Amino acid sequence: MNTSIIRYILGHIMRIEGMLMLLPWIVSLIYRERVGVWFLIVGVVIFLLGLLITHFKPRSNVFYLKEGCIATALSWIVMSVFGAMPFYLSGRIPSYVDALFETVSGFTTTGASILSDVESIGHCMNFWRCFTHWIGGMGVLVFLLAIIPLTGGSNINLMRAESPGPSAGKLVPKIKYTAQILYMIYMGLTVAQIVLLVLGRMPIFDALCVSFASAGTGGFSVRNNGMAGYTTYQIWVTTIFMILFGVNFNVYYLVLYRKFRKAIDVEEVRYYFLLILAAVAFITYSLCNTAMRFGEALTHAAFQVGSIITTTGFSTADFNLWPESCKTILVLLMFCGACAGSTGGGIKVSRFVILAKTVKKELNSYLHPKSIKKIKIDERPVEHEVVRSTNVFFITYMILFAISLLLVSMEGNEFTTNFTAVLATFNNIGPGLDAVGPAANYGFLTNLSKFVLIFDMLAGRLELFPMLILFYPPIWQDYFRQRKKARIKENNKGKKKEKAKKAKITAAGFSYIQ
Amino acid sequence: MNTSIIRYILGHIMRIEGMLMLLPWIVSLIYRERVGVWFLIVGVVIFLLGLLITHFKPRSNVFYLKEGCIATALSWIVMSVFGAMPFYLSGRIPSYVDALFETVSGFTTTGASILSDVESIGHCMNFWRCFTHWIGGMGVLVFLLAIIPLTGGSNINLMRAESPGPSAGKLVPKIKYTAQILYMIYMGLTVAQIVLLVLGRMPIFDALCVSFASAGTGGFSVRNNGMAGYTTYQIWVTTIFMILFGVNFNVYYLVLYRKFRKAIDVEEVRYYFLLILAAVAFITYSLCNTAMRFGEALTHAAFQVGSIITTTGFSTADFNLWPESCKTILVLLMFCGACAGSTGGGIKVSRFVILAKTVKKELNSYLHPKSIKKIKIDERPVEHEVVRSTNVFFITYMILFAISLLLVSMEGNEFTTNFTAVLATFNNIGPGLDAVGPAANYGFLTNLSKFVLIFDMLAGRLELFPMLILFYPPIWQDYFRQRKKARIKENNKGKKKEKAKKAKITAAGFSYIQ
Repeated sequence: MNTSIIRYILGHIMRIEGMLMLLPWIVSLIYRERVGVWFLIVGVVIFLLGLLITHFKPRSNVFYLKEGCIATALSWIVMSVFGAMPFYLSGRIPSYVDALFETVSGFTTTGASILSDVESIGHCMNFWRCFTHWIGGMGVLVFLLAIIPLTGGSNINLMRAESPGPSAGKLVPKIKYTAQILYMIYMGLTVAQIVLLVLGRMPIFDALCVSFASAGTGGFSVRNNGMAGYTTYQIWVTTIFMILFGVNFNVYYLVLYRKFRKAIDVEEVRYYFLLILAAVAFITYSLCNTAMRFGEALTHAAFQVGSIITTTGFSTADFNLWPESCKTILVLLMFCGACAGSTGGGIKVSRFVILAKTVKKELNSYLHPKSIKKIKIDERPVEHEVVRSTNVFFITYMILFAISLLLVSMEGNEFTTNFTAVLATFNNIGPGLDAVGPAANYGFLTNLSKFVLIFDMLAGRLELFPMLILFYPPIWQDYFRQRKKARIKENNKGKKKEKAKKAKITAAGFSYIQ
Repeated sequence: MNTSIIRYILGHIMRIEGMLMLLPWIVSLIYRERVGVWFLIVGVVIFLLGLLITHFKPRSNVFYLKEGCIATALSWIVMSVFGAMPFYLSGRIPSYVDALFETVSGFTTTGASILSDVESIGHCMNFWRCFTHWIGGMGVLVFLLAIIPLTGGSNINLMRAESPGPSAGKLVPKIKYTAQILYMIYMGLTVAQIVLLVLGRMPIFDALCVSFASAGTGGFSVRNNGMAGYTTYQIWVTTIFMILFGVNFNVYYLVLYRKFRKAIDVEEVRYYFLLILAAVAFITYSLCNTAMRFGEALTHAAFQVGSIITTTGFSTADFNLWPESCKTILVLLMFCGACAGSTGGGIKVSRFVILAKTVKKELNSYLHPKSIKKIKIDERPVEHEVVRSTNVFFITYMILFAISLLLVSMEGNEFTTNFTAVLATFNNIGPGLDAVGPAANYGFLTNLSKFVLIFDMLAGRLELFPMLILFYPPIWQDYFRQRKKARIKENNKGKKKEKAKKAKITAAGFSYIQ
């Protein structure tokens, strides 16, 4: 395993994070908040550390999927460990585990909070919370690929490990330009939302934070009552942008290059909108039955469906109090998640399309046992490898889900609470039902549960395998075995050289004697 | 599609069911219960109907997997529809949907009841309830294969559709003898349990019913307080036999033929016992923490784990009141289920072994991207087809689960109730948690939910695909298209014949003239 390249990437990540921490510091200067100085201190320290680490160039630039996974998993862990420092050092979040939970929840765009009173921690802290969503949304390694030249040609492995969806595609042949285009679309949409919200008379600070949180499909709120305090216009703008950020970004690329026909034909996106429409219609109808006015019901339903399917997790109302069928629809949408190649989490619509087509194919095989048909998406056959890895993903997902549920249940909370806590963190949504519902928070859990959920958030964001690889013993056994071999080889080489030297000396002695 | 053979099989099923109904009638004679006469009436009627139907031999004996699935699904539906009649006609279960629910729950060995007072319906009714478990446990088509000569050699398709597990194996080359051996083992074990229970001073009627219900891993109880009223000895005997009926029957076959070494080596069975041990240890420990004495805790834990993992669903205590972690373990064991080739339901241990090995293989592929290793079970490589169908099964299972959950949630009950109601019926267990817990029943549900759960019970027992095929429109579209073609062909033939006749006549006329 090429550990030097992993070290090099981690160094770069620390440099980037150090620089990004200056932004909340600037916010603290504007609002004259003293605690903001911790962002400066931590930021400078990790920047210098990163500088030191990247000073030593890697021995080799080559890395494979294994290194890509480990580098990605470690990057996210390192980012979170340092990102949590200002919360903890400033004393705004007194427990470091809580601070870590909050930061991981931020970077993974989950939005599950341990804070019961977010307004009290100050502007700079809230800015950092929402800004971590924005950083985590598109992925920090994608950002790295956009700015630094990592030659070697195998950086697609980094992108593959970080991008959501069954298959990471390159928009353009060069990975660097792909990353740049993605970030440009991402920024453009974010700016558009900020402008529209400010035009709707939202305070600039709120507009920034809400836009960051919806762009990353995160869901941290800077108000204690979530999104409930905003106007209907502001809520609809947020609804629309949340849904837009859940669309596969390839579609925007196609639109940018005026390939409208192709953009409309993307099957996944059509199913995504179909799901949203169906869920909104059903929930609106159910809410109207509970004596809510139609307009209000539609606004709540559209906002909540958009918020849940994109795994943002904002809430305007306490949907914990809605009819059970609406809650079940939301729970099922939590599993579903947004499109592949978007900033949203979850299992992804495209995976479900592939899974549903697998089942249909199986049924057809009873009808025509000898026919061999490939599953098609966007009228192109899906590679066998993609189908297989989708199946494996789904199975791994369910097994991890079960293990997490068991561990969290040790704490003694109710089944619905445990189930939706795991669901809401694993799929990077945020609020669950009952004790972890939209009107509650995760602060009351024990540290064991918090660590389980931290793992789930990271595993969910990185689509399981990078985190699993990092904690898979054979990977490290293999690594240490190889290192041992290399050392023995070097020793042997050293011995051989010594022998050769001795032999030379003896020979020289001989010749001398002679 | 060969519909005549399906009709023929259905006729045989009706004849068998008609004869079996005489048993509860005999019970009613012993206990002098007047309502028992309905068993005689219904039994004779369906026997005669069956006789009429089987009087016409099928045009062809050949059938494929498609026909096997449809025949199996229809057999189970027909059996349930007629089996529910005595409950309804006697007025002991006033609603026919309830009677159907109870009967399907019986045949599928689920054990979910709509009755709140089982003791009041009489001995013959209770005997029939438990006897349906015994019939459904090993499968009625397997019984059919054991007694009637269905030539054609493709009857393995019937067995495949009805037997649980990823792959149906023949114990001996001839399917008829395989079925006979299975039924002999089944009967032997049942008789052993009855004898041991009677020796432990259980009333003979109770011993019969409890043994039938544990043999089929059903779980209907003939006492209002479930199994709580029996002695510790009786409970331990039942525990051990429940667990034995959850073992792959191939193991008993190997033991019978003194292949002990091979019997011990069956990987699935080892994991099955390992799971039971781990769960019992954990639950015993947790119960001791709630101030229960060790002996009592162990008895309850062993009984409940055995009852849940084998999907029997008996209960000695209201586990709804146990610590949350114990409940979660039971919920996870509900998904797991017993061994393939046993009478138990659920996803099956062997499928989970395959799924876990799939995930492990995936992780290893990150380590050695180029290695091609097959998954091994019992030290033999697992066919690619089995792995694929296991994956598809799991996915189909989850999708059906989600749809059922959504439909049941329409009713407005709590999430835990809905979730465990679907779980407990889909896996043929019986009791769930909360409102469908061991101390409650399913009677309060609406008819819509009852129909959904009836479908789930049948789909779960027949391992999804037979039921799905029956309701898959293309199968029937294809069938009607082929029938239409055949009719047109016949018409054309008829016309050709007429033409030929006419031509002949004309020719004859000509020749006559000439």
